[in-house]
Amino acid sequence: MKILGIVGSLRQGSFNKSLLISAIDLAPKEMNIEIFDLGKIPPFNQDMETNLPESVKEFKDKIISADGILFATPEYNYSIPGVLKNAIDWASRPFGQNSWENKAVAIIGASPGMQGTARAQTALRQTFTFLNVYCMNRPEIYVAKAADKFSADGKLIDSETKDYLQKFLVEYEKWTLRMNK
Amino acid sequence: MKILGIVGSLRQGSFNKSLLISAIDLAPKEMNIEIFDLGKIPPFNQDMETNLPESVKEFKDKIISADGILFATPEYNYSIPGVLKNAIDWASRPFGQNSWENKAVAIIGASPGMQGTARAQTALRQTFTFLNVYCMNRPEIYVAKAADKFSADGKLIDSETKDYLQKFLVEYEKWTLRMNK
Amino acid sequence: MKILGIVGSLRQGSFNKSLLISAIDLAPKEMNIEIFDLGKIPPFNQDMETNLPESVKEFKDKIISADGILFATPEYNYSIPGVLKNAIDWASRPFGQNSWENKAVAIIGASPGMQGTARAQTALRQTFTFLNVYCMNRPEIYVAKAADKFSADGKLIDSETKDYLQKFLVEYEKWTLRMNK
Amino acid sequence: MKILGIVGSLRQGSFNKSLLISAIDLAPKEMNIEIFDLGKIPPFNQDMETNLPESVKEFKDKIISADGILFATPEYNYSIPGVLKNAIDWASRPFGQNSWENKAVAIIGASPGMQGTARAQTALRQTFTFLNVYCMNRPEIYVAKAADKFSADGKLIDSETKDYLQKFLVEYEKWTLRMNK
Repeated sequence: MKILGIVGSLRQGSFNKSLLISAIDLAPKEMNIEIFDLGKIPPFNQDMETNLPESVKEFKDKIISADGILFATPEYNYSIPGVLKNAIDWASRPFGQNSWENKAVAIIGASPGMQGTARAQTALRQTFTFLNVYCMNRPEIYVAKAADKFSADGKLIDSETKDYLQKFLVEYEKWTLRMNK
Repeated sequence: MKILGIVGSLRQGSFNKSLLISAIDLAPKEMNIEIFDLGKIPPFNQDMETNLPESVKEFKDKIISADGILFATPEYNYSIPGVLKNAIDWASRPFGQNSWENKAVAIIGASPGMQGTARAQTALRQTFTFLNVYCMNRPEIYVAKAADKFSADGKLIDSETKDYLQKFLVEYEKWTLRMNK
Repeated sequence: MKILGIVGSLRQGSFNKSLLISAIDLAPKEMNIEIFDLGKIPPFNQDMETNLPESVKEFKDKIISADGILFATPEYNYSIPGVLKNAIDWASRPFGQNSWENKAVAIIGASPGMQGTARAQTALRQTFTFLNVYCMNRPEIYVAKAADKFSADGKLIDSETKDYLQKFLVEYEKWTLRMNK
Repeated sequence: MKILGIVGSLRQGSFNKSLLISAIDLAPKEMNIEIFDLGKIPPFNQDMETNLPESVKEFKDKIISADGILFATPEYNYSIPGVLKNAIDWASRPFGQNSWENKAVAIIGASPGMQGTARAQTALRQTFTFLNVYCMNRPEIYVAKAADKFSADGKLIDSETKDYLQKFLVEYEKWTLRMNK
């Protein structure tokens, strides 16, 4: 099973990048998560659609060949980062060539505060209807107080969160199998 | 009264850019709308905050010196464009230096379809609580079937929409005066 | 296939009730839609959970025995009606006895205006994650300018809308079969 | 200053009712908060608009004569309670007789979990655009882990929360004065 992992933050020490890297380690044996770096994706401009940037072509190909997509999103200004939405916009286009079509999706998220990206995850799900992807409802994962749960070098060190993430990924594997049937 | 106009689309022939340019013409005498081009703004990366890109500094200065902000947003994937959210994210940072603080805001939007950016405007308003800007409730403007309302060279030619936009801007002027008191 | 139809409006001449009744007529041969009248459901009060009102018991039983749920929602104040949300709340309770669990869901909506319940449908979907129901992404149906599309006695007379609703129900049948496997 | 307090839960021992009662005690000297009990409000039915129920008339009068509205909302199914939305719907009607018009509003919320009604408050704000009420952006109050913060008889016993609520109400007083000018 090929899962494409996408992080909404470009920050080197991003909690969400660390969380996604932890997911690679904790994933079930058959689940292979590859991370795509959104740093290469330029700002969306519809005038460039006739001649897509190479990074966007590569991104769209990676999405199409994946069995599912795992989003790791921070919360910026009560929604998802512009960087993440911009990547979503590119891959949904040109008209009639939406690469997200029918993917089995899940969301993970970490934040320094108490709410662990609750609003960002809700905002992200709102785009899924139009993208025509199907997102697992449960379990959900909201990693609150992230600064206490990762080591200085970005290792997930909170054992409760690790166990929960592991179970989350087992369920996501089932969801991906179900939606790819 | 200085209003900063921001368009969520980078497309040359964008309906929303055309709508904002029409707003410049139709604005009350005392309202001066200047458009900032988001094409210059790079993808947000928190690691760059210690040394802000020049375009971002300029953007933040323009926001701070404006009396109000007029957003013209298309709807992409049932939300606002990543390009617009990315600009919002930059200007809200670094922590403690949110440039949007206390601005009097309004939204205009145009789309080819029937709903005229209803979901995008709702999604944009969700960020306003955190940004601490105050958005006019009414009137609202949703320019549906935009292809019928602009000429090939981007002039707003629908007289009903022109009248409505003019009244909208009169109300926005009052709102901006009220919130800057 | 047993589908439970739920209307968010209690008004006798409700467009959404009329739309749901039309769906009964237009449904594929194997799909049997029964409408539950929310008028019987009292305001939710958690203190009554130890002794559920008869109407709520009946509602929960109908949901549990259905293969899918078809919501017909008007838009009130940019969201779903309180009457509809109240019924959702009752059937999601008591804790651990969520009757919605795993249902295959779809939404139809009609409004007098241009936007055909766009915001209400988005708000309704937001509850689905917690309810753990799976809503069909596409097609979507937004019946705008409803007053032109129904006869005085509530018959759906717009042939384009009828065709579209019929196709919608064919897709919903497939979705329900898929999610009940 | 007359503030109308509205609780979204009918439960006798509701945390949100307790929180609102605490607000009465902690309010600035000039702020008088009166609670309206939503238990009296029947399910909304537009056919009853020509002959409004007495409880709805009383509710609308209380809203109209108030300087501001303080909502205390739990989170049910990732949104506001149906009971609260139902009351909002009644008071927004009949067409042209929206009682909420121009009120200065604030939201408080308590929940047993970690997120303290984050999604409910966001969903509630979405209705405010149409209601044409102006909600204070900041401070916001999310009382998480409510079971630890109230005594068995519903007294707010967490001193940090009390201090914060007190400051919140001081800011809300300023907001109400500002928006009633």
